[in-house]
Amino acid sequence: MNDVVTLAHGAGGKQTAELIDTVFKTHFSNPEFTADDAAVLHVGNTKLAFTTDGFIVSPPEFPGGNIGKLSICGTVNDLACMGAKPLYLSCAFVIEEGFSLAKLDAYAAAMKETAAEAGVRIVAGDTKVAGKGQVDHLFITTTGIGQLVEGVHPSGAQAKPGDAVIVTGDIGRHGCTILLARNQFGIDADVTSDCAPLWHTVQSMLSVTPDIHVIRDATRGGVGTVLYEIAGQSRVGIHLDSQAIPVHPSVQGVCGMLGLEPLYLACEGRLVVFAPQEKAPALVDVLRQGEYSRQAAIIGTVTADEPGRVVVRTEIGAETLLPPPGGELLPRIC
Amino acid sequence: MNDVVTLAHGAGGKQTAELIDTVFKTHFSNPEFTADDAAVLHVGNTKLAFTTDGFIVSPPEFPGGNIGKLSICGTVNDLACMGAKPLYLSCAFVIEEGFSLAKLDAYAAAMKETAAEAGVRIVAGDTKVAGKGQVDHLFITTTGIGQLVEGVHPSGAQAKPGDAVIVTGDIGRHGCTILLARNQFGIDADVTSDCAPLWHTVQSMLSVTPDIHVIRDATRGGVGTVLYEIAGQSRVGIHLDSQAIPVHPSVQGVCGMLGLEPLYLACEGRLVVFAPQEKAPALVDVLRQGEYSRQAAIIGTVTADEPGRVVVRTEIGAETLLPPPGGELLPRIC
Repeated sequence: MNDVVTLAHGAGGKQTAELIDTVFKTHFSNPEFTADDAAVLHVGNTKLAFTTDGFIVSPPEFPGGNIGKLSICGTVNDLACMGAKPLYLSCAFVIEEGFSLAKLDAYAAAMKETAAEAGVRIVAGDTKVAGKGQVDHLFITTTGIGQLVEGVHPSGAQAKPGDAVIVTGDIGRHGCTILLARNQFGIDADVTSDCAPLWHTVQSMLSVTPDIHVIRDATRGGVGTVLYEIAGQSRVGIHLDSQAIPVHPSVQGVCGMLGLEPLYLACEGRLVVFAPQEKAPALVDVLRQGEYSRQAAIIGTVTADEPGRVVVRTEIGAETLLPPPGGELLPRIC
Repeated sequence: MNDVVTLAHGAGGKQTAELIDTVFKTHFSNPEFTADDAAVLHVGNTKLAFTTDGFIVSPPEFPGGNIGKLSICGTVNDLACMGAKPLYLSCAFVIEEGFSLAKLDAYAAAMKETAAEAGVRIVAGDTKVAGKGQVDHLFITTTGIGQLVEGVHPSGAQAKPGDAVIVTGDIGRHGCTILLARNQFGIDADVTSDCAPLWHTVQSMLSVTPDIHVIRDATRGGVGTVLYEIAGQSRVGIHLDSQAIPVHPSVQGVCGMLGLEPLYLACEGRLVVFAPQEKAPALVDVLRQGEYSRQAAIIGTVTADEPGRVVVRTEIGAETLLPPPGGELLPRIC
């Protein structure tokens, strides 16, 4: 490990896991400590999920959303991925001196609207102001409490050979949007972030079956990083059909120009779901009726062989290993 | 209101309250939303307190603590002030690229130690890395869940005429320490931060009586700001005896040199407590047996007249109005 924190430590891949293992797990280890999306707490007669997430997106406004909307979606989705109904949120702001009050108001309005849509209440907050140059515009940290749905236990370690791998929509839109919003490449393309609160999406799947093995949101590191994590945690292989993976043509185009892999671009409104093969068609059916999952698709299967690896079958039928995540992922979205 | 966020908006005084009222309360209003230290949530058969706090102290290390210790104390103390036993914490880090891993490890170690002392478990976390210059060293946001003690309902609105006003130790040490640690004044003085987790301090008071009207930690804005808030919320007057207010000689000296009022310097390990006059001596007795409250003292009384005002009786017996808080408080500690 290097002796300073690097951008790769924040990219959501291997180095992030290393940082968490060597610094935080070492010190914070206790029975409820989680490296998962949320901790599970037994409080009185209730099982709660508890999760926190910091949002530092630059620029803070982008086609399809802003940091306010994103900060609600991120935490709502982390709870949803645990099979937990989001109940309460707190939000802590660090704002740069001189930041526009009108913008702050617009972000708070987006937070309100997104929270209302997800059925969650913002109940506590904190505001700090940092001097000019001490923070890039503003950071928002949201923390959520959700109530675990009885009999539902999705986890990255629960993928089983034979499972279908589902994505709930076209991938890579958020990462691609942020990349274009930074204007570093002079590319103009019609892409908006997929940023959305997904509790109702999860609820619709649970109405089909509680027997869903894995639900993960593919944020930092994209679908590819999530698949490698699940392959490792569940000790299974994952075979993808490249033709089946939904990617918006504009995202595909931008990726082609810049040599990026859509599987490694961040999503903020897409779930990766592992479920028994026989349940998969009904899940895709219900997903396609939902506002945020019209392009849901089965993109692969789980195998007992090649544990820990993600293999892609290309258009011409060749099988290649998806390059494992590592180092700094481009574009860095947070 | 100005059209941009100013440092005064983050100083914890009048402008902070304005910002919360005009932006956040407007949008986030709901029955559980709180402007208090923590929200009260009814989850299953349990009443929980829920609070969040962002820590951006500069420098991140100071005599008596560091940002890691501070981030645990702040949230533990916000729960304790609600009469809630701290149960669980989450922590979200935003770290500047290039920050020392050894320092990060030291802060995490301090967090572990402080959490263990307070009897609270760190169960969830998040790590983001911001580019060089996008964040000043590191920010930590902690969010806490506590269990409300049955029959205990302290609140800033509960102060009653006749109550005694107690502080649990000498005031202004944290603000004074941070001011000196910045080395802007070339003053050398032997002052350490009072930064401490205070759940056990609250517990010791509750062992004397559950009938405590107000418990507040005097952080941003110091004891003076807290007293003005309580005077306003409870519509009472507060009379202080300047001679009774414990201030460390070094803090007094620094304040004398710089023209600062110790009542407006931040504490991070001191509580302001309002309780019935007849209970006050026993409370002070038990406090003086505690590690963090050996200098507890009764510093004033609550009156029905002059609601909303804080009056100080000076050494020579004159009564003067404590100048109300407002604008940017010096030194800005977060």
